[in-house]
Amino acid sequence: MVGFSANVGKISRAFKSVNALVDTVPVVFGNESLEIDSVDELNIGAVSLSLNEGAFHSYDGNGTEVHLDIEQICQLLSKFDRGSQATIKCDVDKSLVSLLVSGYEFELATIHPDSVRGGRKAGKVDPPAEVTIEAQEIQKAMRLGDMFSEEIIMGIDDSREVFYINSKGDSGNMAVSYNSGDDEITFIENERAHGVFSHSYLYEMTKMIPGNEEISLKLGEEYPAKIEFNFADDDGEIAYGLAPRIVE
Amino acid sequence: MVGFSANVGKISRAFKSVNALVDTVPVVFGNESLEIDSVDELNIGAVSLSLNEGAFHSYDGNGTEVHLDIEQICQLLSKFDRGSQATIKCDVDKSLVSLLVSGYEFELATIHPDSVRGGRKAGKVDPPAEVTIEAQEIQKAMRLGDMFSEEIIMGIDDSREVFYINSKGDSGNMAVSYNSGDDEITFIENERAHGVFSHSYLYEMTKMIPGNEEISLKLGEEYPAKIEFNFADDDGEIAYGLAPRIVE
Amino acid sequence: MVGFSANVGKISRAFKSVNALVDTVPVVFGNESLEIDSVDELNIGAVSLSLNEGAFHSYDGNGTEVHLDIEQICQLLSKFDRGSQATIKCDVDKSLVSLLVSGYEFELATIHPDSVRGGRKAGKVDPPAEVTIEAQEIQKAMRLGDMFSEEIIMGIDDSREVFYINSKGDSGNMAVSYNSGDDEITFIENERAHGVFSHSYLYEMTKMIPGNEEISLKLGEEYPAKIEFNFADDDGEIAYGLAPRIVE
Repeated sequence: MVGFSANVGKISRAFKSVNALVDTVPVVFGNESLEIDSVDELNIGAVSLSLNEGAFHSYDGNGTEVHLDIEQICQLLSKFDRGSQATIKCDVDKSLVSLLVSGYEFELATIHPDSVRGGRKAGKVDPPAEVTIEAQEIQKAMRLGDMFSEEIIMGIDDSREVFYINSKGDSGNMAVSYNSGDDEITFIENERAHGVFSHSYLYEMTKMIPGNEEISLKLGEEYPAKIEFNFADDDGEIAYGLAPRIVE
Repeated sequence: MVGFSANVGKISRAFKSVNALVDTVPVVFGNESLEIDSVDELNIGAVSLSLNEGAFHSYDGNGTEVHLDIEQICQLLSKFDRGSQATIKCDVDKSLVSLLVSGYEFELATIHPDSVRGGRKAGKVDPPAEVTIEAQEIQKAMRLGDMFSEEIIMGIDDSREVFYINSKGDSGNMAVSYNSGDDEITFIENERAHGVFSHSYLYEMTKMIPGNEEISLKLGEEYPAKIEFNFADDDGEIAYGLAPRIVE
Repeated sequence: MVGFSANVGKISRAFKSVNALVDTVPVVFGNESLEIDSVDELNIGAVSLSLNEGAFHSYDGNGTEVHLDIEQICQLLSKFDRGSQATIKCDVDKSLVSLLVSGYEFELATIHPDSVRGGRKAGKVDPPAEVTIEAQEIQKAMRLGDMFSEEIIMGIDDSREVFYINSKGDSGNMAVSYNSGDDEITFIENERAHGVFSHSYLYEMTKMIPGNEEISLKLGEEYPAKIEFNFADDDGEIAYGLAPRIVE
C-alpha cells in the first residue's frame, strides 16, 4: 500500500501541471519523493514532476509504480476547497485507488499500464542558454502571438544579450524582446539560441503558473526548449521539454 | 380579472423552481393562494408550488385557472432588479396576460390549455423516511456524481442512522454519507430507504436553492423521492416528486 | 509617414465603436483630426468617427488616407492595460503599419483599398426630432426587446411629448415610454417620429457605451435613426446612422 495526504491546492497544482500534457501517467511512489515522467501522445512535449516528502502531510512510498488517471483526480479535486486535505491510497495488489476528501470517498478505476505513456525524462535535456523570466511575460506573449500564428519563435541574441519572442503570420507579425537591463528577466547563461515551437504546447505548459512567479527557460540552437519551476515551498519541481519544429 | 403584485425576486424564485421541470403550466389563482401542480414531459418529475397571499403586495384570486408561459416570465424578470415590483394581470375573457415592471409593459401570449401539462400533485406522495439537509450538500454531491454516472443512488441505512449518496460508473465510484451526529443533517424519520434517481432531474430541482437553506428529503424503498422547501418567509412552498429508476 | 500616440483605452473606445459595424475601413489622417466614415456590408448602418488632435499624446496628419483592419487592432489592444500608451505609424509608400505598445511591436498587414468599404457619411443625415437619453435605457430595451422580435420600433408622440420603444412578436409585445418629466430623458426637438429598425444593429451600436452616459437620438418619419455621442473629453465624436426597415 502506497499513498499520501496533502493539501488539495498542492496536489492540484502538481497534477494539473502534468495534465497540461497528458491525462494518464505512471506515478512512482519513491522512498522520499513522488515522481512522474511522461511524454505527450505526439512525442512533442515531455513533463517531469518531482514532489518531495516535505510537500505532504504524510507519505508512504517504496518504489512502487502506479498508473493513475490524473485528469480525473484533478477534476474531482477542483470541486473541493484548496485548503482541504486529500488522501490518496493505492493498493497495487487489488488494483484499487481511493481518494478521500472532506467526507467523500472515491474509488477510482485503475489504468492498465499498456494504455499509459511513460517516457524519456524532460529533465535530461540540457540546452546551453538560460534566462529566468516572470511567467506573466510568457503568458502575455502567448495570448498575443496566438493572433498571428500557431508557431512561436523564441531565441537569444547573445551579442546584444537580448531574449526575444516572435510570431509571424499572414495577417502580420509580433515581436517583443527583453534585454539584460529589464526587471522582468535575468540572463543566467547568455548563449546564442533560436527555435520555432508549437504555440499551443507552450500555452498549455505556462497558462497555470501564477503570473508573478519566475520560471527558468533554457534554449539553444536545434535544442528543445526546457521550462522549469518550483512550487510548494520548493518541495515540488516541474520540468517541461518541448521539441522544436523543423523549419525548412 | 385575477393577478398580483410582488417583488421580482420572490416571483422569480417561485417560477424558476417550477421552470426547473416545465415551461408552461396551469396557474390556479385561488382565493388565498396561487397554486401550480405540474409534471414534466416524460412523467418522471412532478412539482407543486403554493404561494400564499402574504407573499404578495397585492393579490386577486377567485379560483380561476390561467395557462402561463412561466419560462418567458422568468426570462423577462431576470433583466430587472430583484427588488423591483412586478405586477401580473390576467384577463381570462380576453385571453390577455400583462406584466408590468419598472415602466415596462409586456403583453404576453396566452397558452392554449391543450398545450399545457397539468398533473398529479407532487404533494400527494408520502415516502416514510425523512431527513433535512443543507441544500449545498446535495448540490456538491450532484456536481461530483456527474463525473461518474447519470444515476444517483440515495438511501438511508436505518440500523446505523446513516444517509448516503452514491454514484457508480465505469470510471469509478463516489460515496458520501452523513450520520445523525453531523451538523449538516437531521434525521426526522429514520426508516430504511434506497433508490436510484436521475442525476439531471435532481440537479435541476436543487441547483437554484440557496446553499445554506435546509431542504426536506423524503425517501423510501420503491418510493419516489420528495424534496420540499419553503421560501418567501414561509409564504411559499415547493414540493418536487421524482420517480425512481427501475433497476433490473 | 502619418500616425499617433494615445492611451490604449481611448483608441480602443474609438475603434471599437467603428468595429461595431465594420472591420476594415479607410482612416483619414487629417491635419487636425483623424476621421473615419464607413457603411456596413449591407448598407444598413453608417458610422462616422472624428477624433481631434487633442485626444492624442502626439499626432501627425497630412490628409493621407490609410486602410486599416481596425478589428485586428482592437483585438491586440484588448490584451494591454487601458492606461498604456500605444503608437500607430503608417508608412504609406511601403504599405507598412506598425503598432507599438508596452515593449511589443506589431507589423500589421495593410488592407488593399478595394477590399475596404468607405461610404456616405452618417453625419449628413438630419432627422427632425431629437432626445438625449442615458445609454443604459436603450441597452435595457435592447435586452428585453430581443425576446420578442428582431425589429425595434422607436418613435415620438409629439402631442404627448412621449418617446417610446416597442417590440412586437409572436410570443408577446413589449412597450416602454418616457415622457418629458422623466429624469432619464430630455426632449431637444419634440417632433413626431416613428420608425422600425434592426434590433441587432441598434444593439451593436449601443452595447459598448458606458451606461450612465447620455447619447443623442435623432428620429423622424421615414428617416434613418441617428445616434451620437462624445468621448475622450469631447475630443472624440461618434455618429451612427441606421436605415429604417420598410414595413409593408
